[in-house]
Amino acid sequence: MDAKQLSDYVTYVFNEQLPFNRFLGFEASWVAEDKVELRLPWKDELMGNPHQRILHGGVTAAILDTIGGLVSILQAVKELAPMEPDEFAGRLAKMGTIDMRVDYLRPGRGKLFIATAEVLRKGNKVAVCRMELHNQDNEHIALGTGTYLVG
Amino acid sequence: MDAKQLSDYVTYVFNEQLPFNRFLGFEASWVAEDKVELRLPWKDELMGNPHQRILHGGVTAAILDTIGGLVSILQAVKELAPMEPDEFAGRLAKMGTIDMRVDYLRPGRGKLFIATAEVLRKGNKVAVCRMELHNQDNEHIALGTGTYLVG
Amino acid sequence: MDAKQLSDYVTYVFNEQLPFNRFLGFEASWVAEDKVELRLPWKDELMGNPHQRILHGGVTAAILDTIGGLVSILQAVKELAPMEPDEFAGRLAKMGTIDMRVDYLRPGRGKLFIATAEVLRKGNKVAVCRMELHNQDNEHIALGTGTYLVG
Amino acid sequence: MDAKQLSDYVTYVFNEQLPFNRFLGFEASWVAEDKVELRLPWKDELMGNPHQRILHGGVTAAILDTIGGLVSILQAVKELAPMEPDEFAGRLAKMGTIDMRVDYLRPGRGKLFIATAEVLRKGNKVAVCRMELHNQDNEHIALGTGTYLVG
Repeated sequence: MDAKQLSDYVTYVFNEQLPFNRFLGFEASWVAEDKVELRLPWKDELMGNPHQRILHGGVTAAILDTIGGLVSILQAVKELAPMEPDEFAGRLAKMGTIDMRVDYLRPGRGKLFIATAEVLRKGNKVAVCRMELHNQDNEHIALGTGTYLVG
Repeated sequence: MDAKQLSDYVTYVFNEQLPFNRFLGFEASWVAEDKVELRLPWKDELMGNPHQRILHGGVTAAILDTIGGLVSILQAVKELAPMEPDEFAGRLAKMGTIDMRVDYLRPGRGKLFIATAEVLRKGNKVAVCRMELHNQDNEHIALGTGTYLVG
Repeated sequence: MDAKQLSDYVTYVFNEQLPFNRFLGFEASWVAEDKVELRLPWKDELMGNPHQRILHGGVTAAILDTIGGLVSILQAVKELAPMEPDEFAGRLAKMGTIDMRVDYLRPGRGKLFIATAEVLRKGNKVAVCRMELHNQDNEHIALGTGTYLVG
Repeated sequence: MDAKQLSDYVTYVFNEQLPFNRFLGFEASWVAEDKVELRLPWKDELMGNPHQRILHGGVTAAILDTIGGLVSILQAVKELAPMEPDEFAGRLAKMGTIDMRVDYLRPGRGKLFIATAEVLRKGNKVAVCRMELHNQDNEHIALGTGTYLVG
């Protein structure tokens, strides 16, 4: 599979094969040729305190970790392609988050939450990502910084 | 309400009134007079990759954030008590996570996950907690460090 | 003192009264009406491994912590001004770093290092900053994220 | 060189060959067969604010980063030994800090500061360490969490 096919396979896995992503309602979508976003529509189960009707901090952490992992893997794909599906599946299974920091900037209020990420360190073993969470009004809710094992 | 009553109220809120805690299945329980734990039984919806059958990193982050917040609030209660219920509810609404780091140490494999936390900085405005996640076999799965606004 | 006078006083303190800043050679300078930078010229004492002739990671951490603290205080000054010198000195003594993350992106090679920071959370108790370190060729060497007590 | 020789070589490098460690006055010493500490005697150049006579936060960050790096490398040595000096020097040059978090728990007051570290994740590529800084009276001044590239 070439880089495009591997990338499509990765977003397919994130959207269809990771139970927790479906349970929360994360959806990865391509918004430009080289840019992927993770979207999460509000639902009441995602609330922390019901008096404030804001996202639980754990949801914020989960979506930031997920977009950081996704974008790190997509970056790694560029270096790995072309690669056979079986070999790539083996590689994918070894990738994962090493550590992450989340900064909660504003209460997580909104109808739709959009997570984005940028790779700042592109190593062949380790990638470092900066992640952001905004709501539908482009209010900046949280910031993430994550270190991912990619090779 | 005295410190004991306020503490019981806080654990009641975490167990019964926070929708996301119920959605995931977190349950706070007192394991000693001064020690609370957060327990999470495995269910398939919490999986990241189904091939490995391990916790999604976002679940790990969510439970660590939650136990850190709970223990920080319980620490603050000791300073605040006694306090009227209404005033305490107002204080509680202003408490929250400022930032958190999660270190993923081992794959999140297990039937039951137990999160614990210890307050390392006890300020009247800010608390710093160290959190840990173990499984039922006492394998150390993840480490958290969190800064919480408590006053 | 008004906001401008307090700001000038803060940069004076950072440049002239903090022994470690002088020991390493940090120098704060205003590069626009509302933007301050911290500059550090290379000297051999700042080296980690002499074979690579790069900055010790501790120097990187120190300059990121310092610019984050400086910019957080300058942000707080805007809210506090006008204020009497004695009262401000008392406030200043209580401000400080709560926690910080440093991400090392590239080896710290260069003749001149420039640290900048931006406040992302402007609270009356706590500020969160994102900090960056570049060299004279604008290579991005490190990233910082810091939480500061400001009130 | 066997594990013992490689370990002694690493502490020699940290004590004698890293200019910044000497500039600040860090000294690594073995306090048990398998336990190394980093000690730093107070000197006025290490002060942040002279009114409080406490360590600059950057010194705290620097010593935590250094003990974390040292202990991570010593852990890696156990896996690498025996190894020829030249090959080991090549490996050592590629090791380094990926990211670090510092939590400032108490003002850095004291005559002697002692930094310790424990490896919590022992990977063949990446190690995660927890670091602590105490003063001569065993007051816990700061906490560190670091991720290190070791292979």
